[in-house]
Amino acid sequence: MRDRRNLQTRTHFADPRAAANNTAMNKNTIDFPARLAAVAAKTETLLEQLLGSAPLEGEIARPPRLVAAMRHAALDGGKRLRPFLVVETAAMLGVTHEGALMAGAAFELVHCYSLVHDDLPAMDDDDLRRGRATVHKAFDDATAILTGDALLTLAFDVMARREVHADAAVRVALVTELARASGLGGMAGGQMLDLAAEGRFDPKRTLNEKEIATLQAMKTGALIKFACRAGATLAQADAAARASVDRYGAAIGQAFQIADDLLDVEGDAKTLGKAAGKDAAAGKATLVAALGTDGARARLKVLIAESDAALAPFGAKADTLRAAARFIAERTT
Amino acid sequence: MRDRRNLQTRTHFADPRAAANNTAMNKNTIDFPARLAAVAAKTETLLEQLLGSAPLEGEIARPPRLVAAMRHAALDGGKRLRPFLVVETAAMLGVTHEGALMAGAAFELVHCYSLVHDDLPAMDDDDLRRGRATVHKAFDDATAILTGDALLTLAFDVMARREVHADAAVRVALVTELARASGLGGMAGGQMLDLAAEGRFDPKRTLNEKEIATLQAMKTGALIKFACRAGATLAQADAAARASVDRYGAAIGQAFQIADDLLDVEGDAKTLGKAAGKDAAAGKATLVAALGTDGARARLKVLIAESDAALAPFGAKADTLRAAARFIAERTT
Repeated sequence: MRDRRNLQTRTHFADPRAAANNTAMNKNTIDFPARLAAVAAKTETLLEQLLGSAPLEGEIARPPRLVAAMRHAALDGGKRLRPFLVVETAAMLGVTHEGALMAGAAFELVHCYSLVHDDLPAMDDDDLRRGRATVHKAFDDATAILTGDALLTLAFDVMARREVHADAAVRVALVTELARASGLGGMAGGQMLDLAAEGRFDPKRTLNEKEIATLQAMKTGALIKFACRAGATLAQADAAARASVDRYGAAIGQAFQIADDLLDVEGDAKTLGKAAGKDAAAGKATLVAALGTDGARARLKVLIAESDAALAPFGAKADTLRAAARFIAERTT
Repeated sequence: MRDRRNLQTRTHFADPRAAANNTAMNKNTIDFPARLAAVAAKTETLLEQLLGSAPLEGEIARPPRLVAAMRHAALDGGKRLRPFLVVETAAMLGVTHEGALMAGAAFELVHCYSLVHDDLPAMDDDDLRRGRATVHKAFDDATAILTGDALLTLAFDVMARREVHADAAVRVALVTELARASGLGGMAGGQMLDLAAEGRFDPKRTLNEKEIATLQAMKTGALIKFACRAGATLAQADAAARASVDRYGAAIGQAFQIADDLLDVEGDAKTLGKAAGKDAAAGKATLVAALGTDGARARLKVLIAESDAALAPFGAKADTLRAAARFIAERTT
């Protein structure tokens, strides 16, 4: 699976003193958990509307079973980190309209589709997600396949909507970015590499550190990085700002995966809402396995410093994204 | 599965005298098989380029196994009917640039993804497609799931490209149309209804004729109808022309499915390149089962008349689309 932590809406911002100490710029004036929860609540409302039962123009009917399975997959769950990154990156760059929320919902739909497909018996075979039955357990395998397909398709539908941005050129750029981050050369490709790294197609296959980094950059990093970039695209930011946002997104994408792998090693099923230790048992390629837990923690510190460096040009406007980097690196669920 | 005929590139335009007799407007001046083959060849070249191994901007790497499986799914097969409908509808309305071919490739990628997922053991469990092993047989189930996901994602990537149309507003409209035709309220929803109609979730479930028509309009009709509409969108056609094209697309979409169901009843595995009689054995809901073969043939005649009526405003410019309707209704593979 591409995403291994408990995605309940409750958020725990690990020790705020630690976060405040990590950078002089973070004056701890950001109520990060409140901001994260606010975007999550708005995203939930939006997804609820998007997954209604009435067909839209160009649709013939919405089969109730498929609607129910899509709602099971997408509603009432998750920190909604990707929408948060879209919204807060856009806000840092001066865009505060609701379009960022709509674009964020498109990212969340892609994220949810990936979880549904990755949980399938043919993939990672997981029964539990967010403390609930996975879609193929609550429904069946065929319904889960179609649910993922329909969530992915809806993501592009949503990203193309006028509510995202008045300028069609911006929307079409967002569609391209979402596709590149999600497909063959991004998330789907990363899952392919992850299955290969398990030795599924060649039992002797092992990855070196560089190959693990590529795998993880694709599997989870790409969507996180592009969520940030989407904020910059919505703001029609200049090349320098885009480069800074990309640098930040790459750093937190890596931090996200390392923190995830640490949780798999150190977490327990009750806190995680799903089985722990599964990656290690499956012989999954992780940087924690390659670097050890101490090495992984040291890498997280480097990545926080990298994200701070990337955000330096934005001054205090970047405080929320600075806090987000710490949240991602230090989270306990 | 959504598409039940042999998709080899060889095309057989059933008895040309019959086609010529069906309408006074069709002067038989169109070399239909040659036009169909020409678009298929160009589509093949384009798909070959789109499924190369080099990552594009925004992609990290293209895993060779996934590229190979996507190529297995998408190359060297099919009449490429959906690209043909995009290209020829656009041409009828005066658009002859290569953008229609690129838009057509996006439709074909969606079509190919649907075949890969529908063939999975959890869905229709087919081992043979176009006379070759299906993706999950040639590779494995997990790879087939990711292959479908990546083909669908690539379709939106392709539709958003500048080569499709210089105007971003046109591209974004095409993205929306493709998503609506393919997703919850279109093709994916139709496959959900088809599984339900098999009695998979409720053994007592049977469909009446109207429900079968809705199912089929979603499962196969939507993508065919929207392929035609995409041609009209590319041409930025006026409302009257769009309505005519929609009417034509709806008629040929229905004809396509009825001809398909007739082939399932009457074809043999050698000609079809896959098992015949499977739908009947599975108790699939078809109009042939509801109307009988004679009733189904009578319905095909009505649909050809309907498509001719829809195309009347376009005069001789519509000759290729008229021939396409006959090809669809009368094909033997």
